[in-house]
Amino acid sequence: MSRKSPVRPGEFELIARYLAPMAGPGALGLTDDAAVLTPPPGSDLVLSKDALVAGVHFFADDPPALIGRKALRVNLSDLAAKGARPLGFLLGLGLPRGWREDWIAGLADGLAADSAEFACPLLGGDTVAAGSRAMLSVTVLGAVPAGSMARRSGGKPGDALYVSGTIGDGALGLLARMAEREGRAVAADAPLVLRYLVPEPRMALAQVVRNHASAAMDVSDGLMGDAEKLAAASGCGLALQLSDVPLSPRSRAWIAADPDNLRRAVTGGDDYEILAAVPPERATAFEVAAQVAGISVTRIGALTESGKQILGPNATPVHWRDASFRHF
Amino acid sequence: MSRKSPVRPGEFELIARYLAPMAGPGALGLTDDAAVLTPPPGSDLVLSKDALVAGVHFFADDPPALIGRKALRVNLSDLAAKGARPLGFLLGLGLPRGWREDWIAGLADGLAADSAEFACPLLGGDTVAAGSRAMLSVTVLGAVPAGSMARRSGGKPGDALYVSGTIGDGALGLLARMAEREGRAVAADAPLVLRYLVPEPRMALAQVVRNHASAAMDVSDGLMGDAEKLAAASGCGLALQLSDVPLSPRSRAWIAADPDNLRRAVTGGDDYEILAAVPPERATAFEVAAQVAGISVTRIGALTESGKQILGPNATPVHWRDASFRHF
Repeated sequence: MSRKSPVRPGEFELIARYLAPMAGPGALGLTDDAAVLTPPPGSDLVLSKDALVAGVHFFADDPPALIGRKALRVNLSDLAAKGARPLGFLLGLGLPRGWREDWIAGLADGLAADSAEFACPLLGGDTVAAGSRAMLSVTVLGAVPAGSMARRSGGKPGDALYVSGTIGDGALGLLARMAEREGRAVAADAPLVLRYLVPEPRMALAQVVRNHASAAMDVSDGLMGDAEKLAAASGCGLALQLSDVPLSPRSRAWIAADPDNLRRAVTGGDDYEILAAVPPERATAFEVAAQVAGISVTRIGALTESGKQILGPNATPVHWRDASFRHF
Repeated sequence: MSRKSPVRPGEFELIARYLAPMAGPGALGLTDDAAVLTPPPGSDLVLSKDALVAGVHFFADDPPALIGRKALRVNLSDLAAKGARPLGFLLGLGLPRGWREDWIAGLADGLAADSAEFACPLLGGDTVAAGSRAMLSVTVLGAVPAGSMARRSGGKPGDALYVSGTIGDGALGLLARMAEREGRAVAADAPLVLRYLVPEPRMALAQVVRNHASAAMDVSDGLMGDAEKLAAASGCGLALQLSDVPLSPRSRAWIAADPDNLRRAVTGGDDYEILAAVPPERATAFEVAAQVAGISVTRIGALTESGKQILGPNATPVHWRDASFRHF
C-alpha cells in the first residue's frame, strides 16, 4: 500500500545494490521466488530463526553494520551449539518509515563481512515496510552428519557442565552501552560494549560439541535460566558453582564495584557462549579438543539426579527470582 | 528489555499452548535452539521467506485466523510455483504492544488448520516484542527432485504463457475489504474479500509445472509486472492479451462498473496464482495435466524475441505506468 520515494532506491535496486553481492549460487541472483539448495549428502539440516527488533534487541542508533553482524551472529551461535556448520541464511528485513539508504548500506556492509567470514551466503529473503521500527528476521541453515545434531535433551546425571568463553560481558555490555548513549561512557568499558554489540559465535567449537557433548545449547537468555532449561530438557537436576563461572577482567571489575552485577552477569543474557553437558569419561577429551580449537571452556557445575543447587561466590545457595531474560 | 505481564501467558506457555500442537517431529517440541530435518534423498531444497506486517499487508482488525492462514499460504504459493512440495515452516512472530491472548489463539487456529491441510508442520521460529505493529515472518521449506526446480529464467521465445485460476480477485478484494471496514459492504463482494484474505496456493499444480513448464513464478505483485519479470529473467520479450486474462464473475462485474478496475486487477497483486511459460509442443500436455489436477489454466500470451506488447480489451496497446505493487 506504500509507494516508492523518489529519493531512495526502490526494492529491486536495493536488492541488486546491497544484498545480491553477498548471495550464494542457490539464491539465483535474488531474482526468483525461492532459493534452491542441494543438501550435503548424508547430512541433516539444522534450522534456526532469531529476529532482532529496534528498541527491543538493539538501539535504533547502534551502528548499522554492527546490527547486521549481530543479526547473523546470534543465529550462527545456535548452529555452533548444535554442532552444525553454516550453509546459508535468509534475511527478512523490515524497514521503518524514514529509512535512509546509508543505513541500509551500513547494514549490508556488516552482513556481507560476516557472511564471508563465516562462509554463510545469503540465499534469499524478503524486504518489507515495517512501520515505526526496523526489524531483522534471519533464518539460518546448517548441516551436521545425519543423526549427530547436539540437543538439549541428551544430558545424564553426573555429566559435567562446561561453558565457553566468558559470561556476563553481553549483559554488562548492555549497561555500558546505555551509559555511553547517556554520555556517561567509560573508556575501559569499550570491550564490554563491543561484546554486547558483536557477539562471537563459537563456530570452532561445533565439531567438539558434536563429538563429545551429551547435550548443548547456546547461552542467549542468561546462563542460570539456560542451564535450567538444559537440565529440564535432559530430565536432570542441576548444580552450579557461580564462583567457577568464567568472567572477563572488565566484568570482574564491575562485580567488584557492585556485587549485584554478578546476578546481572549470570541472568542477563546476550552471551552467545556454548553451554555443554559432557559425560565424565569424555571430559578430558572435550577440554583438549576445545583447546586445540582455540576456545576456552570452563567447568561450572554438573547435571544431577534432581533438584537445583546454585551456589553463590561465598558457597551459599542463591535464589534469584528472574533467572532468565523474557522476550516479552 | 520487557517483562512478562501477569495477565497474559509468558513466552514458554504461549509456545507450549498455541504453537507446539502444530509442530512436526523435527521441531523437538519447540524446546531446543534449532530444528532438525533430514532432507528427502535425491531432493533439492526450495526456500522462501515472505513477511506480513499489520497495516501494510493486512489490517490489524482482520480475523487473526485468516492472518495466520495468509502468512503460510503466500509462502506455500511460492513453493507451488517452483514445483515443490512443502516440508515445513518456521514462524517469526512479532507481537505488538497490547497483544491479547485471544488474538494469538485465533492466529494459531488458522495456522494449525493450514499446517494440517497442506502437510506443512511447524519446525521452529522466534517470538519477539515488535513495537506498534504485529508482524509474521514465515520461512517455508520445500523439496523437489534434484535439479528440477522451476525457475523464472527458463522461458524461450515462442513459449505460451499460462496463468492459473482467476486474476484480480485479490486486488479488487482489497478494495472490497476497505469498503467493508468503512461500513460500505456489499454482500455480493464477500467472495472477493475472502480471496483477498485467504489466497489459494495452487499446490496441486506443482508437479504439473515441474513436468511441463520452462519457467514459472507466483503472481503476487500484479500480473503485468510479474509477467515482465519472468520475461526479463528468461531474456525474452512479452506479448499479453488482457482480453484473455481469466476473471471471476464478480471481478467482471467490477470492471463493467468501472473500466479502470481492469488495470487494478492486472497490476494490483495479491493473486497467488501461478504464471507459467510452456513450450508449444508441451502446451496440450500441460493443459490436460492441469485439468487432471483440478486447476483451471488459461493461455494469456507468449514470450517473444524482444519488446513488450500488452493489448487491452479492445486490442489497442496499453501503457500503464505502475505495472506492479511496490513493497516500499
